[in-house]
Amino acid sequence: MKKISVVIINRSNYARLKPLLIEIKKSKKIKLSIITGSSSILSKYGDASDQIKRDGFKIDYEFYSHLAGENIHSMTKSTGLIILELSTILSKINPNLILISADRFETLATGITASYMNIPICHVMGGELTGSIDEKVRHSLTKLADFHFPNTNRSKKIIVQMGENPKNVFNVGCPSIDLIKSINFKKEVDLNKYSYGRGYRVNLKKKYLTVLIHPDTKKYQENKRLVLETCKALKPIKHPIIWLWPNIDAGADLIAKSVGEYADKNKHMKFNFYKHFEPEDYLKIINGSACLIGNSSSGIRESSYLGVPVVNIGDRQIHRERAKNVIDVKEDYLKIRNAINKQISKKRYKKSFLYGDGNSCKKMVKILEKIIPTSDKKFFIRN
Amino acid sequence: MKKISVVIINRSNYARLKPLLIEIKKSKKIKLSIITGSSSILSKYGDASDQIKRDGFKIDYEFYSHLAGENIHSMTKSTGLIILELSTILSKINPNLILISADRFETLATGITASYMNIPICHVMGGELTGSIDEKVRHSLTKLADFHFPNTNRSKKIIVQMGENPKNVFNVGCPSIDLIKSINFKKEVDLNKYSYGRGYRVNLKKKYLTVLIHPDTKKYQENKRLVLETCKALKPIKHPIIWLWPNIDAGADLIAKSVGEYADKNKHMKFNFYKHFEPEDYLKIINGSACLIGNSSSGIRESSYLGVPVVNIGDRQIHRERAKNVIDVKEDYLKIRNAINKQISKKRYKKSFLYGDGNSCKKMVKILEKIIPTSDKKFFIRN
Amino acid sequence: MKKISVVIINRSNYARLKPLLIEIKKSKKIKLSIITGSSSILSKYGDASDQIKRDGFKIDYEFYSHLAGENIHSMTKSTGLIILELSTILSKINPNLILISADRFETLATGITASYMNIPICHVMGGELTGSIDEKVRHSLTKLADFHFPNTNRSKKIIVQMGENPKNVFNVGCPSIDLIKSINFKKEVDLNKYSYGRGYRVNLKKKYLTVLIHPDTKKYQENKRLVLETCKALKPIKHPIIWLWPNIDAGADLIAKSVGEYADKNKHMKFNFYKHFEPEDYLKIINGSACLIGNSSSGIRESSYLGVPVVNIGDRQIHRERAKNVIDVKEDYLKIRNAINKQISKKRYKKSFLYGDGNSCKKMVKILEKIIPTSDKKFFIRN
Amino acid sequence: MKKISVVIINRSNYARLKPLLIEIKKSKKIKLSIITGSSSILSKYGDASDQIKRDGFKIDYEFYSHLAGENIHSMTKSTGLIILELSTILSKINPNLILISADRFETLATGITASYMNIPICHVMGGELTGSIDEKVRHSLTKLADFHFPNTNRSKKIIVQMGENPKNVFNVGCPSIDLIKSINFKKEVDLNKYSYGRGYRVNLKKKYLTVLIHPDTKKYQENKRLVLETCKALKPIKHPIIWLWPNIDAGADLIAKSVGEYADKNKHMKFNFYKHFEPEDYLKIINGSACLIGNSSSGIRESSYLGVPVVNIGDRQIHRERAKNVIDVKEDYLKIRNAINKQISKKRYKKSFLYGDGNSCKKMVKILEKIIPTSDKKFFIRN
Repeated sequence: MKKISVVIINRSNYARLKPLLIEIKKSKKIKLSIITGSSSILSKYGDASDQIKRDGFKIDYEFYSHLAGENIHSMTKSTGLIILELSTILSKINPNLILISADRFETLATGITASYMNIPICHVMGGELTGSIDEKVRHSLTKLADFHFPNTNRSKKIIVQMGENPKNVFNVGCPSIDLIKSINFKKEVDLNKYSYGRGYRVNLKKKYLTVLIHPDTKKYQENKRLVLETCKALKPIKHPIIWLWPNIDAGADLIAKSVGEYADKNKHMKFNFYKHFEPEDYLKIINGSACLIGNSSSGIRESSYLGVPVVNIGDRQIHRERAKNVIDVKEDYLKIRNAINKQISKKRYKKSFLYGDGNSCKKMVKILEKIIPTSDKKFFIRN
Repeated sequence: MKKISVVIINRSNYARLKPLLIEIKKSKKIKLSIITGSSSILSKYGDASDQIKRDGFKIDYEFYSHLAGENIHSMTKSTGLIILELSTILSKINPNLILISADRFETLATGITASYMNIPICHVMGGELTGSIDEKVRHSLTKLADFHFPNTNRSKKIIVQMGENPKNVFNVGCPSIDLIKSINFKKEVDLNKYSYGRGYRVNLKKKYLTVLIHPDTKKYQENKRLVLETCKALKPIKHPIIWLWPNIDAGADLIAKSVGEYADKNKHMKFNFYKHFEPEDYLKIINGSACLIGNSSSGIRESSYLGVPVVNIGDRQIHRERAKNVIDVKEDYLKIRNAINKQISKKRYKKSFLYGDGNSCKKMVKILEKIIPTSDKKFFIRN
Repeated sequence: MKKISVVIINRSNYARLKPLLIEIKKSKKIKLSIITGSSSILSKYGDASDQIKRDGFKIDYEFYSHLAGENIHSMTKSTGLIILELSTILSKINPNLILISADRFETLATGITASYMNIPICHVMGGELTGSIDEKVRHSLTKLADFHFPNTNRSKKIIVQMGENPKNVFNVGCPSIDLIKSINFKKEVDLNKYSYGRGYRVNLKKKYLTVLIHPDTKKYQENKRLVLETCKALKPIKHPIIWLWPNIDAGADLIAKSVGEYADKNKHMKFNFYKHFEPEDYLKIINGSACLIGNSSSGIRESSYLGVPVVNIGDRQIHRERAKNVIDVKEDYLKIRNAINKQISKKRYKKSFLYGDGNSCKKMVKILEKIIPTSDKKFFIRN
Repeated sequence: MKKISVVIINRSNYARLKPLLIEIKKSKKIKLSIITGSSSILSKYGDASDQIKRDGFKIDYEFYSHLAGENIHSMTKSTGLIILELSTILSKINPNLILISADRFETLATGITASYMNIPICHVMGGELTGSIDEKVRHSLTKLADFHFPNTNRSKKIIVQMGENPKNVFNVGCPSIDLIKSINFKKEVDLNKYSYGRGYRVNLKKKYLTVLIHPDTKKYQENKRLVLETCKALKPIKHPIIWLWPNIDAGADLIAKSVGEYADKNKHMKFNFYKHFEPEDYLKIINGSACLIGNSSSGIRESSYLGVPVVNIGDRQIHRERAKNVIDVKEDYLKIRNAINKQISKKRYKKSFLYGDGNSCKKMVKILEKIIPTSDKKFFIRN
């Protein structure tokens, strides 16, 4: 049996990996070992760890590593702490392979710990181009990883360009598309499950908008402007607005505060604030939106398969591959408002397979069963 | 004035950067800020920090971060600790740019801290190919860095292949060659400055050999064999042997113990053990050697310019570019012995400019003065 | 000049030490060095650090050390982190003495760091008896400290009982009484300075109640009950209620959540939630209260001098010395309600000097100027 | 079953607790959980962890926490690291009680972690008076601990004076006396098991001296003088000298270096350097010594029961209770030499029961089986 460890670090990280974890658990050749830490074990951030247990998984270790403050200092120090924590935990678990995904500081900490402990690494969602600090981290992780599960053809090419052995780079599509495929969209979301802030309560059967804005960690003073332009754009629009709190990056506190104050001053707007949703509910909610607004990668990735109209604001996703459902606009309230109105009038886009066809997890598990984990890799010089 | 921070982490790190620090200090456009930590502040490892002060530099901050043990656990945890320490220090210094070099865990910790704190990074000695965990770390650092000072043309090509903007990649040659150029080789080394272990005392005017073996962190159980084969190879050779303790990587303790025991059992061998030399003395000593034996990068890099005969053992430097002065052999005592004998009979090789012509620091400082430090970088897709 | 460092770790810590800092700053024999960390630098917790600067002090170092989660894990790990941070900072500042106060985990971390770095310690507010984990920490700090500034005669006796040299134990009274003495109570609090949660807005000229409940870290599952009994007790009382969020101990999140939910279900109650007040405003608000309710030490300490009627609930302050203004009750809504009604009917108590007469800071500074800081202390055996 | 965790932090710590661990293991009411960390897992410091396994115990967790450097910085930072490590480990083990002993920084870290995690603490060897930083730490630990196993009557009185509940303070004697009682002194020590430095090889059947000098962490610049005076005192004495490297406190490196240099210059002296001995062998060696010289607590404690002549130098043990076998001298070579000569001429002292009669472990286990672990303790005011 191959022992594969997965480190879950927050709720969206779990949401995307959940279908893969289910598939790995079914394998007779792989022993799954789940570790949860960072914000995934904090109730304030949706306690993904608790959700994971309720979903029937066993958690081997939980670790506390998340510094309060949501700024570059706390983010950097948390990276150091995770390395301290994970080195103790991984030496106890001693896995044959560790599976990491995407590009957050917690993932970089995991990649470094595994590299120095000679644990081979398989990296999911590498090779994507975006912008922001994530870009540096993502490609750094590619150079630490031994096996790669990119989600698009361009990502695969980019990983190979960086000198990775093409034999170890597999475009399998994104596991989050598998999750979408498995959802029964006819079953309605029960919003009563979730505590919400104040004011208007949305009716999911009627037209509504969804907003999700993440801070840009490199320009975190400018995040406030982004929020305010978005709020201003939404001001005259009469539909209710589901606003989801951002991830706990540097700047998240500022975003929450800015939009809260705006809502206080504009009581006519039908804001509904939510801290988090369960993965399936989140996908149902964006699927049901007349328009998804913000700078989240889910507006590019999951929405492409759903065919949801999206208004993507600013540079955060600038270089990411996108399908036709996305209108890109600058941080300007008039441009944002026009794009929203255009998208609302549009009913729906055609399903795109850019990020996978919903069968990626089965493909990944087959590869994971087959590969011989090793951390001896060689740079491939290309002419 | 541009404020540039440099983090010195051990004695060999200082040795290579010293000529660059001297050159930066002369600049009227750059304010130099030196931080020392890890093993550079420990007397047991040669106290580079003290040397730096004696060389006339001011040290802004010293930090303690080095876990005892010299194994993968202590190396990994030290990485975490350095991030914790440096984030506090760098937020106090607030430099415009940070200069890092090569590929050790301390450097990765520095690169990560700077990245998350939005401090632009200039990486010296990137793009080289070797083998071992260093390979992962070095290329990871390239993807975190914003500016690059590779030391050879191939390294430059590799950095560009990895998607870096060619405008920010400068092959300036290696600063260690500048150091060599500045040395007065006629002035003899005074070995009395250095405490030595026991036994025979070498006469530097007569024929002697120098050995420097670093542990391979990925295969650290095999390091003992490497040491013993080398000792066995040297057994019948009558020249005295200057043996330098390795860096404090995982496995260093084991190497020291193995060779110590061998020396105890083979009293006829003229071993001279040294913990460290000052940079210039080290270069004089390898320059004066009839043959340099081991797996150190100085056997490839500095020795190419010196033209010293080198026997490079094993895979540690396998992919590194080399000049004609190197004979590569496997970890087999007979092969090692034959190569040593061949090199001893050979007087000297022609000076090679593969790693620079001795003017790299001036070039670097000019570029550092000119560039506008920024951490907004873009991946360059190549077709 | 004697260099004395003070580490400020949260807003209430600053509130109590502010008059002492002012007095030290005036001294010509002492150089004051302020360090801020833990929650004192986080906007979410009132950003005491910012307040300190606005009050005209210079801050030498700020450090990030506060783990999110507000539970025993985060509290313990934060202790470890503070030691890591402060050891770097204190070795840079190199003070002759460090001044610490009370009994929180941050203070224990400071005491340990100073002890191991041979920095003499002066401990303010030692020797008090309470209950809870604070008890262990407070007396532990007494045994690490070299000089003691207890605030009552009983505290002094207890410190001496523990084996401290009576010559180094000075009952000077509590600096917080000095702060009260310096306040102009005629100048009204401007509540508009503070962001508040929702609902009713209190008029400070009319009768109102103030509630402040801190979690008990040892029984943090029982904190919810304490909150609910208090809410239930207040339900029929028609006066508005200023409710102040607790410190960031383990359990603080739970308290905030519990009372928030109760407020949602009992819209008739005139709750006013506040995250923090500036020190002077806080004292004015409790001074103006018809009754102060909860388990905060300010209900025992500052209120004794103010003569404010207090209902102290539960065991948290069980062994603390108190004046006549306090009615102690169990966590039972009927008992709490009766006590509140009794206190509301009572106008005011006589000023007590139990915790000092308002001149303690001058006394402390005189002693600090005189003592020769040393960390060589001897246990005094008593018969 | 009561789960009791014991944290072993170095070889001498294990030596003293070994007989207690054996006794606990036999109990049917206690489940023993052993954690090893700090220097106990490093081969350089005698790898107690490995010894523990060879002695038939199971180790639940090993942790790396020991910073290199042996100075106040590394000692302080190690304290912080241990708290980070142990909080993760103890929350996984979740013991009913933790057993700690003596007064080192690792033990303080353990005590703090347990206190904040609400794990009741039983402290062995509290209440002793010595001098040095250990004094602060030891009494601090008493105030964190819930149950106490002092080793002498005076220690018990002192713990009670500090306000502890007399019902929870048990003078059981020292477990190290149990170890002595269990040893077969007729079976000779095989010195070949231990690697030794250089020079003369002692014959244990003939007269020899044993030296063990620990650094004083508060005056670590003065440690060198202490070593040199001792060496000078020994210079004319013709018997061979077994010199044992000190613990890894701040200053240990300096001591090792100083005595090494002295030995180099005085080749006629019959120095035998040893890094460590197994507990039983260490006791046999001091038992066989004509005189034990230095400042180790074993010269006071274990030697009192053995009746070995001891020369105790300086203040490190100044306030510790002692039997008649000890001559105390200042750090003056003439005084040291006179005392040594006097002790050598003396054959042997009478066995003393000051530190126990060799049955303490059985007593402790009985108490541990009986007590109900709780961390709710109350200060006992004494009149």
